[in-house]
Amino acid sequence: MSSTMNKPHAITCKAAVAWGPGEPLVIEEVQVSPPQPQEIRIKVVSTSLCRSDLTAWETQAIFPRIFGHEASGIVESVGAGVTEFIEGDHVLTVFIGECQTCKHCRSVKSNTCEVLGLERRGVMHSDQQTRFSIKGKPVYHYCAVSSFSEYTVVHSGCAVKVSSVAPLDKICLLSCGLAAGLGAAWNVADISKGSTVVIFGLGTVGLSVAQGAKIRGACRIIGVDTNPEKSEKAKVFGITEFLNPNDCNEPIQQVIKRITDGGADYSFECIGDTGMITTALQSCCDGWGLTVTLGVPKVKPEVAAHYGLFLSGRTLKGTLFGRWKPKSDLPSLLDMYSKKEIMIDEFITHDLQFEDINKAFNLMKEGKCLRCVIHMPN
Amino acid sequence: MSSTMNKPHAITCKAAVAWGPGEPLVIEEVQVSPPQPQEIRIKVVSTSLCRSDLTAWETQAIFPRIFGHEASGIVESVGAGVTEFIEGDHVLTVFIGECQTCKHCRSVKSNTCEVLGLERRGVMHSDQQTRFSIKGKPVYHYCAVSSFSEYTVVHSGCAVKVSSVAPLDKICLLSCGLAAGLGAAWNVADISKGSTVVIFGLGTVGLSVAQGAKIRGACRIIGVDTNPEKSEKAKVFGITEFLNPNDCNEPIQQVIKRITDGGADYSFECIGDTGMITTALQSCCDGWGLTVTLGVPKVKPEVAAHYGLFLSGRTLKGTLFGRWKPKSDLPSLLDMYSKKEIMIDEFITHDLQFEDINKAFNLMKEGKCLRCVIHMPN
Repeated sequence: MSSTMNKPHAITCKAAVAWGPGEPLVIEEVQVSPPQPQEIRIKVVSTSLCRSDLTAWETQAIFPRIFGHEASGIVESVGAGVTEFIEGDHVLTVFIGECQTCKHCRSVKSNTCEVLGLERRGVMHSDQQTRFSIKGKPVYHYCAVSSFSEYTVVHSGCAVKVSSVAPLDKICLLSCGLAAGLGAAWNVADISKGSTVVIFGLGTVGLSVAQGAKIRGACRIIGVDTNPEKSEKAKVFGITEFLNPNDCNEPIQQVIKRITDGGADYSFECIGDTGMITTALQSCCDGWGLTVTLGVPKVKPEVAAHYGLFLSGRTLKGTLFGRWKPKSDLPSLLDMYSKKEIMIDEFITHDLQFEDINKAFNLMKEGKCLRCVIHMPN
Repeated sequence: MSSTMNKPHAITCKAAVAWGPGEPLVIEEVQVSPPQPQEIRIKVVSTSLCRSDLTAWETQAIFPRIFGHEASGIVESVGAGVTEFIEGDHVLTVFIGECQTCKHCRSVKSNTCEVLGLERRGVMHSDQQTRFSIKGKPVYHYCAVSSFSEYTVVHSGCAVKVSSVAPLDKICLLSCGLAAGLGAAWNVADISKGSTVVIFGLGTVGLSVAQGAKIRGACRIIGVDTNPEKSEKAKVFGITEFLNPNDCNEPIQQVIKRITDGGADYSFECIGDTGMITTALQSCCDGWGLTVTLGVPKVKPEVAAHYGLFLSGRTLKGTLFGRWKPKSDLPSLLDMYSKKEIMIDEFITHDLQFEDINKAFNLMKEGKCLRCVIHMPN
């Protein structure tokens, strides 16, 4: 009813706008269009900074742009044809959606929705337009989410309804990194009890893989990071041994092969470095060694590896969002969190006000945070 | 008893000796040492030429050498400690053995025996020596099998006992290529009913993958080969569509993606070309596309592929001998052959006498055969 009776108008609100690569964000007044058919407009409550926001901000050419894709919020209005959400619903945003009808959404083996897949051009899936503008000029989206704004518009397939009692300032982490790590460990690698796991890169994604491995009963979870501060912090998430490549006199893959009697059962590349994917493959054992790559590389997009690594039985798999189907699967993770079966709060190292959003970017650039949660004004 | 009472002596017999890379083999008189502890000496009955013999002969530097690894024969004598075989047993040789005690032999997930794995240095696993000589000078082995000889010595872990009624002149094909293809389809890819499969390279291995895919109920089995003669011949093995890249106006992976609505469920690289592994990955679908690489490349050992192929859900696996454990698993394939559930005879395009062995090499170089079976003198 509300969508016809009280047709929503554009909202003017504050958003953190990136005007150029690597330039500090500027809090600007932006106009947010009403949601178009099958879309919803959300009042963002909490949004955390993920490394892929940082990578895109530093390396991509689409500006002005509003970043942010890990977020929670409350539905403010709905576009025509939306039946799943009503005003006031609590939601998580997701950077790959679930149309629930395409070949991939219908398959249990895939989460790469053909309709609402990863959006790379800074526009909305449905009409290739933006919903943000400043003085009539378009401001581009990021991953069709753009949560660094008081209000944003997303496709209804890119939001997941959550309980109104779930803490929005915590669960926003399930929007991307934390879920990606758990899914890589469970859905993609299917880590078995008693196994040996090595994780390259101990950011939120890597430590979430560690959490997933620990829950599955892996007996050795080796963390690799060049930041010595990670050594102690990583223990809470399940890392049983820490290796800093800078402290080793031989290549890290040789160290791992030596201490694991031939290589790990599973290795995870959580840095976003294609060279490290090769190292991760080399760190796995013959016969059944499985490497999962989760990162988005900043440079050198080609993965290169000697064919013999595969011939001797290794497997290389990749994953986006841990092969979770957002609508179908995120409720189960939220349920696990409410039962204290998975940790979320422990990944939040900083709580920041919206006006301090550039601090989050700096903390992540300097490797001094896991997740910074940015709290939007009430 | 026989090993102590009638201690076997060296045998002088004929072998096809390769004296240099790509040089025609020369039938020479060689001395074959008695089997050492845990080894058996075999009178070779039939041996077929596999492409990896040809590749090693053309590209490797270990000479003089006796090639051949797909073979059947009869045990002539056994070394100390051998309890599994007695004189007169019919056997298949295998190029990767099964010690039955190491970590990999004990795991259901691997066939990469730590003790009797692929031997690359032209010697026996146990003592790094050869069992062949000419006038006292060593002649090197290939894959610790060397079946292009009237007699050869193999580790008892590199032979599989077979029924005395099984036709040795046919089942030698299960020693390598034919089993490798079936295993890639069944053990490694685990092809599901109704799926779409694309196979690059329609030699014995590729056509054996096709056979395996057909048995699993794949609905489309697309064969890719630059040899137009394969088009018709491939049908008997299950190929439903034939593509010759030379006849296409666009890259073959684009053709495949177009005709399969986004890519095949499974792709197999059976050529031995790392560039084609990339093409095979690109020919698979997002979400669950699986590429299996079986070939041993002659040049450019590095596999290269854009990370996005993995991030969007593709998997790359390799396999040696189709992940069959030779002793544990080959009997079931022999059983299937005896029940006419799998084809072997259809892969034999030429029967040659031992003295004509160079014809087999020429036929394979020219792409004019599937398997040439070489029959040893009685």
